[in-house]
Formats: sequence, C-alpha cells, structure tokens
Amino acid sequence: MTSSPFSVPDLLQKKRDGGEHTRAELEALVLGFTRGEVPDYQLSAWLMAVFLRGMTPQETADLTLTMAASGDQLDLAGLSHTVDKHSTGGVGDKTSLVLTPMLAALGLTVAKMSGRGLAHTGGTIDKLESFPGWTAELPEERFLAQAREIGLALVGQSRDLAPADGKLYALRDVTATVPSLPLIASSIMSKKLASGAQTIVLDVKVGAGAFMGTLPEGEALARVMVEIGTRAGRQVRAVLTDMDTPLGRMAGNSLEVQEALATLRGEGPEDLTELCVALAVEALAAHGEDPAQAEARARQTLRGGSALARFRDFVAAQGGDAGLVDAPERLDVAPDRAEVGAPASGFVARIDALSVGRAVLALGGGRERKGEAIDHGVGVELLKKPGEAVQEGEAALRVYHRGGRGLERALDLLAAGLTVAPQAPAPEPLILGRVN
Amino acid sequence: MTSSPFSVPDLLQKKRDGGEHTRAELEALVLGFTRGEVPDYQLSAWLMAVFLRGMTPQETADLTLTMAASGDQLDLAGLSHTVDKHSTGGVGDKTSLVLTPMLAALGLTVAKMSGRGLAHTGGTIDKLESFPGWTAELPEERFLAQAREIGLALVGQSRDLAPADGKLYALRDVTATVPSLPLIASSIMSKKLASGAQTIVLDVKVGAGAFMGTLPEGEALARVMVEIGTRAGRQVRAVLTDMDTPLGRMAGNSLEVQEALATLRGEGPEDLTELCVALAVEALAAHGEDPAQAEARARQTLRGGSALARFRDFVAAQGGDAGLVDAPERLDVAPDRAEVGAPASGFVARIDALSVGRAVLALGGGRERKGEAIDHGVGVELLKKPGEAVQEGEAALRVYHRGGRGLERALDLLAAGLTVAPQAPAPEPLILGRVN
Repeated sequence: MTSSPFSVPDLLQKKRDGGEHTRAELEALVLGFTRGEVPDYQLSAWLMAVFLRGMTPQETADLTLTMAASGDQLDLAGLSHTVDKHSTGGVGDKTSLVLTPMLAALGLTVAKMSGRGLAHTGGTIDKLESFPGWTAELPEERFLAQAREIGLALVGQSRDLAPADGKLYALRDVTATVPSLPLIASSIMSKKLASGAQTIVLDVKVGAGAFMGTLPEGEALARVMVEIGTRAGRQVRAVLTDMDTPLGRMAGNSLEVQEALATLRGEGPEDLTELCVALAVEALAAHGEDPAQAEARARQTLRGGSALARFRDFVAAQGGDAGLVDAPERLDVAPDRAEVGAPASGFVARIDALSVGRAVLALGGGRERKGEAIDHGVGVELLKKPGEAVQEGEAALRVYHRGGRGLERALDLLAAGLTVAPQAPAPEPLILGRVN
Repeated sequence: MTSSPFSVPDLLQKKRDGGEHTRAELEALVLGFTRGEVPDYQLSAWLMAVFLRGMTPQETADLTLTMAASGDQLDLAGLSHTVDKHSTGGVGDKTSLVLTPMLAALGLTVAKMSGRGLAHTGGTIDKLESFPGWTAELPEERFLAQAREIGLALVGQSRDLAPADGKLYALRDVTATVPSLPLIASSIMSKKLASGAQTIVLDVKVGAGAFMGTLPEGEALARVMVEIGTRAGRQVRAVLTDMDTPLGRMAGNSLEVQEALATLRGEGPEDLTELCVALAVEALAAHGEDPAQAEARARQTLRGGSALARFRDFVAAQGGDAGLVDAPERLDVAPDRAEVGAPASGFVARIDALSVGRAVLALGGGRERKGEAIDHGVGVELLKKPGEAVQEGEAALRVYHRGGRGLERALDLLAAGLTVAPQAPAPEPLILGRVN
C-alpha cells in the first residue's frame, strides 16, 4: 500500500462538483485502483461523476497518459516513421490486411499489436491465422528486427499494455458508464500511446455496425482522440467512415483474406480500396507529404505490386505459407453453401452490418468468449450490395457454412438485416469526414 | 439470490439519464444491496447519479418507504395519538428530555427509540443514563404497556430498524454522496417511519453546530421530509431552529439533565423552554388543535408541574432513581472546575456550538466510536451567552472536568470558539421558521 497525499472522497467530491483533476490526482485514483488500493465502489462513483460532469481536454489527455503508463510501454524509438492504425471496430473490416503492407511499401514502419475478434467484430490476428503456420507470437527482438527489415510486423497483445484500461472497462461495463466520450477516447488512446508509434491513424466507424451510431458522435470522438494524441506529442489523424454496410463483399476470416489479397493486386472492391488509400494518405500527410502526391504514391503500391510483395515477405517472416498469397483459392473456405434470396424485386436498400457480423458468429467464425477456437473457413458473401438491383427470390447473400452448423440462425439474421426497396437508395459516401 | 426482473446497469442508466424510478425499481436496487445481491460498486455509481440527477418527491418517498420496510417496523397501532420527535442533531440539545414528558402530559403518547451520542453530538439515552439504575432496554410488551399507562417510554435502538439506511450511509460516507437532499431526508425519515408514530415533529437545526449550514438548506430539507411523511400517510411538521449557539447554558450529560429538570419546573432557560413549547404546539396542531390554545396548554404543563410528574413516573418505570428528579443537585457532576476568560471587554458575539461539542468530547463526555464508555459528569457551562456583556478576563465559560482529563484541549477549543465584540450582536430568533 503506497501512501497517497489525496483523500479519495475529496477527489470524488471534486469531480462531483465539476472540478478539474490534476495529473497527480488522476494517478492517485486510476493507478491506486489498478494496484487494488482504491476500492471499486469508490472508482465506480467517480466514473459516474465523470460521465455526468465530463472532463476537460487536459484532464482527458492526463487520464490517457496515466492509463498508458499503468503497464508495459513499447519502445519503438529505434524505428523510423512508425505508424499505428486503429479502427473503432466493424464488420468485415479487413483494412489492416491491406493498409499495413501499403504503409510498409511507402517507406513507413508498422510494428503493431493487434487484437483477436470478440462477439460480432473480427480481429486481424484471426484473419492472418488463415495462413497455416503464421504465428502472432514473436520475441521482442525479432519483432523489432522484422519491422526494421521489411517495415511490417504484427503480433498479438502479448504484453501488458495499459492494464488500467482493462480494469476500468470491466467496472464501466457494469455501472452504466461505458458511453462517455472522455472514457471511450482515453480507453482507445491509452493502448495506442503505450504501443509506441509516432503517428496514429484512426478509422472511426459510424453507423449501425459501429460503436458510434451517428456522424456527430463519431466526429466528437475523433476530435477528442486527436486532441489527446496531440497533447501527448504524437501525430494523430482520423477518417470517419460509413459502417452501415460491411466493407467489401466478404465477412469471415479466410474469405476476407482472399478479398484483401485481391485488393493488394489492385483488383479489390472499390470501398475497401478507397478507404485504404485514404488512410495511407493521412499517414503520409502526418509526415508533411502533399496529399495529392501521397494519394498517387499510395495507389501505385497496389497497381505496381509493391504492397503485395511486402505482404508476402511479412507472411513468410512470421512462419506462414506465403505460397497462398499467390494462390488464394487454396485458403481453407468452408465447402457448404446456402443463399438468402431477395424478398421482393427492386433495389437492395440496406444490409445491416451487425446482422452480418452476428451471422458469421453463429456459423462459428467468431467467438463469444475470449479463448474460444474459431472456424476460419465460414462466412458471408454479399452477392448484392446496397444500390444494386435484385429480382424477387434472386440470391442476395451467400453463406459459407460447414455441415449446417449455425446455418438456420445465420439465415434468419441475414434475412432480417436485408431490406429491398422499390427505388435505389441515394448513394452514400464511404468517407464521411476527416479530423486532424 | 432472489431473481429480479431488473438489470442493475439498466437502472443505473435510467437514473444517469435523469429518469424517475418506480417503487419496484428502488426495491430491486436498495433491498438487493441490503441483501448483498447488488454489489457496492453498482450502488455507489447509483448514489452518485442520484446526487447529480436528484429525485422527484414521489421517488424520494418511495425510496424512504423501501428503506423503512428493509427491517423491523414498530407497530404502535394500539396506542392513541402517537408522536415521535426527531432533531437533526446539535450540541447541548436536551429538548427530548423536556418535550417528551410535556407531550405525555398533554395526552399524547410517546413510544420512542432514541440514539446514543457520537462524536460532538449527544444522545438522549446517554443523558438519561445519568440516573443510576435507569435502563434503555425494555421488552417490547413492557415498552408498549408503559407507553399506554404513562404516555412515555424511551428505549435504545435495539431493533433492526431500516438496516438499508445504515448500509447505504456507510457507502455514501466514502463516495462523497452524503450531502444530497433526497438521500439525507430518506435516511432520517426511513427510521422515523419504521418507528411507527402517526405524528412526527422535526426539529431541523441550522447553523455552525448543525448538518445544514444555512436557513435555505434547512428549509429545503424540512420540505422534503414533510413531503415524504405526507405521502406515507403520517402527519409531519418541522420547526427550523438556530444552532449557531448551544441550546440553554449546559452541555454534558448530567449537566443537561439538571437543566432539563429546571425547565420542567418552569425555571429553565428561555431558548430551551420556547423551543419545547413550539414543538409541542406543532404536535397538537397536527391533531387539529388551535395553535393559541395548544400553546397555553403546553406552557401549563411546565408551570403546573404535570410534565415533571410524567418525567418522574417515566424515570421510575424504567428503573431509575426517581428521587434525583426532585434533588438534581445529587446527580453526579465532575468535581473539578476551570474557566475560560473573555479575551477582551465587550459583548459575547458568538459561542461556536461545534467547539463546545468537541470540548465535551475531549473531556470524556462523548464517544469517538460506538460502544465507548463515557463520563456523564463532565461538561461545559456557558456563563455568558451571545449578547451578554463581559469584562476582559471575566469567566465566560466553565469547564467541569475530572482530574484534568482532556482539559487542555477543551480549553483550547472553547477559547477558539468564543468571540467577543465591542458591540452587542443583533439578537437572532431561536425559531427561524416552520414547515408543514
């Protein structure tokens, strides 16, 4: 028990009455709680006071730095132009698979920890494990050496990054204090700061499949995160993207890898390609590069094959079967198929991303609880995307299942999430805004 | 574990967003917490939400009824015109010793549980234990029979009244959620409702020695408590009284009993006499009696000796040496004396009630922790009260101590709490207002 100069009830009273905490006060509360010295019943009262009273930008930055310093912090100082990317989560989001080799091909360094999927959202590590032999576990020295050599290394979250965030999140989850802007932003950014990259590019998803339901909410979150990063001395830029519909046409691990490989060959779906280019432009712009030139260079990594080459090197370096990069049809995709037909003739108005995510989960392609094994081969293909014409009964969605496991529930979810209208919906842009 | 139809996080979210709880929701939270089914870290977040969002009158009444029903409830239905009295706490407050026999002499029934003193506030039970042999423990049957026969029975808080209040208070104390109007009011009123009396007279103290520092705060608390009682079907009336200066001239158990006996003989200090008459008038007015007639009848119980007679019967009925009622000089008063002189010539401007209470505590006349033994004989006498003239060095306060125990600290506290000014202060009324 470390003695603290602060009385916890006095600190709760300060936030209760709308006061602004100092960094030292936040450390007493958050690190005291993480060490088990401040009890959960005091922290939860504080979280509710923060929810209702808010935090100033300086407080939010100080809270984030306090959480970032609560555990291990990666030292990437020996690498040049380090970039990290974070997405606030979505369905069918294979952006990292495409973007990170693009960044490496552009001369930046990606030395990144990625997560596994939970519930209806997928995880980059799960997707990469579709390559037999590929490992998410590298000793730190090899991780840094690989990043230096080929500009790209991706590992699982083996280190104890920002443990305060995990403890606080567990308490927020049961005390109705999750949807607070300073608490959401500090939770995301504490792990990014602890991960060590100098530049952080944020993909803030907006829409039915995302954490932030509306554009103003997404913009507000992006602004707070950029402000935190700036106060912490990092370059942070955010792109706001539509998440009403899954990105690309594929959801499910091996299926998404196939789609990512097509994109790296310059043959991917337009929405995924454009998002990856936009995020790469932000990363380069953060280093002062002219946006028009940055965009031309980013597109060239796909057209010219340099991004695909980096990805091939990266899969091989982490033990994966790099031959599959050039023969994606050999990736294990579940052999059984079923289709969801359009309920009427017209135009696809909406394919609910959350329903697609839950369908993949039902098929066994995701996990309900940490540690569960998953089936990399199952998934959903969007044969039609919003705006495309369909005839009544025509197949709009295809399900890749294994022996019917979870099929009935998946078909129900997909049917419920599919809307067909007599008129084509007004086209919605994928990129809704930028914050830097 | 009783299954509840409510999700606790949903209830926290409702109050967080300013919603109004139903009685059933409050029962799920408060009774669930009292039974140990809802964890403290959820209740503390709810308390902070209540602090910041407030409660409607109906919610506050429902919370109070829920807490009142969390344990034993006294059934006084067999007694006529039952009256209870509550003071929000103060220093040198011997009102109950005088008022309760007055009420009995006026034909009402007082069957009351009283507390012991803690920290700088005294307790009626401690004061009555100045009578050798007097017991605060009566079996329920004898308690009710005595109340029926002589109109007055006072016991300690032996029953488990409103246990939810004790558990909630302990959590509020460490989460900066004590000074919330609905929480304070429900805490006080839950015990009063569980105590069973039909009429409740509240003495809400305002000033330095009291919980509520200002008159508007005191009025607001009184209004909420009266509203709770009315919604619970009781008659509740409140008197707001000044607590900047101790009531009467004596503080300390035996000394206060002597002063109370003088008041019951019609020879007491004016402030104490007037407060007791005012509270008795409220109790009679609650039963529809005309205030002018009620006041005349109340004064007559002191002048005519009927209240003193009831008090004598009451002390004897609970085993006390009733001879002391007529020979108060035989009560054990500490033999050693010391005085605090006026620091200058002029008029006493202020005697801080909190300083007097702390001085008695220092002398051994009160307890820091529950269960500690106390010295009934020590105390403080106000030789001068605010508005009275003093010469420099003239004794203004007298300390009754035993062998010097705690004397130095008591003298320091009293000297610090005594203010002498060149002009007499404007006289302040004792009774600042009424709420019913």
